[in-house]
Amino acid sequence: MDLKTLTELLKNKQLSQIRNELVEIQEADIAELLEELNIKEAILVFRMLPKEIAAEVFSFLDVERQSELSSIVSDKELADIINELNFDDKIDLIEEVPANLVKRILQQSTVVERRLINQFLNYPDDSAGSLMTIEFVGLKKEMTVNEAMEKIRRTGFNKETIYTSYVTGTKRTLEGIISLKDLVLSDKHTIISDIMETDVIYVNTHDDQEYIAEVFKKYDFLSLPVVDNENRLVGIITIDDIVDVIEEETTEDFQRMAAIEPTEIEYLDASVLMLAKKRLPWLVILMFSAYLTEMVMNFNNHLIMQFALAIYTPMLMSTGGNAGAQSATLVIRSITLGEVKFKDVFRVLWKEIRVGLMVGCTLGVLNCIRIYFTDDDPFKAMMVGLTLICTTTFAAIIGGTLPVVAKKLKLDPAIMASPMITTIVDVTTLLIFFKIATLILV
Amino acid sequence: MDLKTLTELLKNKQLSQIRNELVEIQEADIAELLEELNIKEAILVFRMLPKEIAAEVFSFLDVERQSELSSIVSDKELADIINELNFDDKIDLIEEVPANLVKRILQQSTVVERRLINQFLNYPDDSAGSLMTIEFVGLKKEMTVNEAMEKIRRTGFNKETIYTSYVTGTKRTLEGIISLKDLVLSDKHTIISDIMETDVIYVNTHDDQEYIAEVFKKYDFLSLPVVDNENRLVGIITIDDIVDVIEEETTEDFQRMAAIEPTEIEYLDASVLMLAKKRLPWLVILMFSAYLTEMVMNFNNHLIMQFALAIYTPMLMSTGGNAGAQSATLVIRSITLGEVKFKDVFRVLWKEIRVGLMVGCTLGVLNCIRIYFTDDDPFKAMMVGLTLICTTTFAAIIGGTLPVVAKKLKLDPAIMASPMITTIVDVTTLLIFFKIATLILV
Repeated sequence: MDLKTLTELLKNKQLSQIRNELVEIQEADIAELLEELNIKEAILVFRMLPKEIAAEVFSFLDVERQSELSSIVSDKELADIINELNFDDKIDLIEEVPANLVKRILQQSTVVERRLINQFLNYPDDSAGSLMTIEFVGLKKEMTVNEAMEKIRRTGFNKETIYTSYVTGTKRTLEGIISLKDLVLSDKHTIISDIMETDVIYVNTHDDQEYIAEVFKKYDFLSLPVVDNENRLVGIITIDDIVDVIEEETTEDFQRMAAIEPTEIEYLDASVLMLAKKRLPWLVILMFSAYLTEMVMNFNNHLIMQFALAIYTPMLMSTGGNAGAQSATLVIRSITLGEVKFKDVFRVLWKEIRVGLMVGCTLGVLNCIRIYFTDDDPFKAMMVGLTLICTTTFAAIIGGTLPVVAKKLKLDPAIMASPMITTIVDVTTLLIFFKIATLILV
Repeated sequence: MDLKTLTELLKNKQLSQIRNELVEIQEADIAELLEELNIKEAILVFRMLPKEIAAEVFSFLDVERQSELSSIVSDKELADIINELNFDDKIDLIEEVPANLVKRILQQSTVVERRLINQFLNYPDDSAGSLMTIEFVGLKKEMTVNEAMEKIRRTGFNKETIYTSYVTGTKRTLEGIISLKDLVLSDKHTIISDIMETDVIYVNTHDDQEYIAEVFKKYDFLSLPVVDNENRLVGIITIDDIVDVIEEETTEDFQRMAAIEPTEIEYLDASVLMLAKKRLPWLVILMFSAYLTEMVMNFNNHLIMQFALAIYTPMLMSTGGNAGAQSATLVIRSITLGEVKFKDVFRVLWKEIRVGLMVGCTLGVLNCIRIYFTDDDPFKAMMVGLTLICTTTFAAIIGGTLPVVAKKLKLDPAIMASPMITTIVDVTTLLIFFKIATLILV
């Protein structure tokens, strides 16, 4: 079913056919269709869906459409959606919608759940607590496989996953985990404690989502238990949420590397004022830092005037900046992926010295030849060539090592990316260029 | 168990204690320890591990260590590892190790498997075929839930996942899927065809991994079936491999955005020559493009000489470049995440015009004031301020729209990132600056 068919059917009021066709397709696809319709049509179609499918579709919608739908539907309908939603989706919804809607949603929840919701809303943003869900299967270690399977059958319907069950002891402390695979493949009478995994990898409610993503990547898990400070099991995190976390963290890295204050709001949804606010701080800092280039230029004004040297400076600075950005990007990404650590700083340095020299010499020679032919001035050709060798090597070294040092100083390596490197390289390039010019020309 | 304890125990030859402690911890953790040891100790420890654990640990090792271990162990041991490995890990291994090892590995495989391996090696890099594994559970639609569970119990041990089973008809065509959750939660006598999902989302062996990752993200799947051109089920892809794909694609984007030819080799493992080769092409192109800046500078040499204008050019160019890089990065990332499409090009344009003007005016006014005080020249202050407003706005527009246009032209939007934008903005900045200078000063 595509958008065209759907709007056609809507126009002809063939509602039962719409319903029949929709229930056959994926919930994510229904959500995509609902986002494309206008809100009037969307609510019409949404109301046609069976209750369980409706809640599932709702969880795939973007926040904007979720808010619109929630504010239109009746209290009864809202309660139905809310009750069918997984707990983590419920929390996400409450965190995003306007205050009056939050009130309505909370009114549709029981007292116990309201207390739980409040507790979840208090976990720091981007922490395990804010990512986890409470819908997991809990088992006791003295159960047999048969009893465990019975419990899963009885309670599994509304769990986020039944593929891993969590074994808890007194006071809900986490004692082990067992996969459905092991349960299915084991004899019915086996005792859980004999086959459960006791070397459980878990995270704390306050652990950061970046760390959690690393744990998932390292162990290839589908889900991960979350415990509180008393080692009590309070929730689980599933891999589908981690995929979103990885994308979110990557977006943050991209933004930092372009000297933008990170934001989670989608580009097209962000207001002009907010976009300007996120971009200005670093632009101002970098612009004022560039005052240093003016000072260097001023100081060497006699050289510039006498030999018309200014014409080469843009090319020199941009080439140096590009070379530095290449090194910085490679190293920043390697740090993010855990491939480069602080102990590798000298290996990075030594690699960048050699790569920088190799690249610099190539660029230097090429440009030397070019200028010799275009400007017919062997001295300037040599000068520019030499400068390129020095600045490219310098840029590679700075670009490669500064992110590693930043990481050691507990700064985000990403801020040592292109714009920052460019500013440093710009000043250095001018200093090197005028030094070489003085040596050769004066 | 940490590295220190392990080396201590190794020194004291307490091998049985090592074994007992290792079998208790995660395979990924054992692999990490093995990577830290020297190869002699590593092989010693590796040989202590029970067969099933050894293969699992082996699949977590990095390629380098896998090669080293494979080349040392006996044919018998190699056969044991190879037999226990999942098929996709086997293929990965064969793709990465030296040719003589490939020969040894193939000798340890059966004729049937050798034929299959050859078929898999022929799938294009980064295609579904190269990502998939053949270890899935296949069911028939006329089976009952009970029979299905029996089959899973019988054959599930060495499957990559048993959480989704695949229902095939005659000639192995894919007819439906069913999750273990549905099997466990259904009555024993239900017929599979009554409860299986028939709206199956699948990919073709030749589909690109970037597309496959998008499918996983959209539907929150744990696994995905792969069919050939005759719609026959040939394999499945699981989410853990997709997490790696997402990281790989992101790394490629980072590299392209820094004007580096993409490579999958880790930074520290890449040779100096190879790193230089990946960086040079774009540096040379961008360097020669910067010849345009020399032409503009040359053409306006009389202005530069008469009014000492060169001193402001580095700051103007770098600020413009930074502003352009910000817009480009935000838009490139949004395109990657599917948030911005070609139809949004005018929304992007209109947004960037306003953000650019807002940011440009702020920067322009700030710098105008600064230059008025440092250089005591109201004309130059005004000139530089005006130029900043124009170039920042221009940079924002170019940075925001070029990636969208590139995508439409089937180019990778990532190449329209910082270095490319900087080069365009550099030339434009100079043109604008000298134009404004002529108007104000001459």
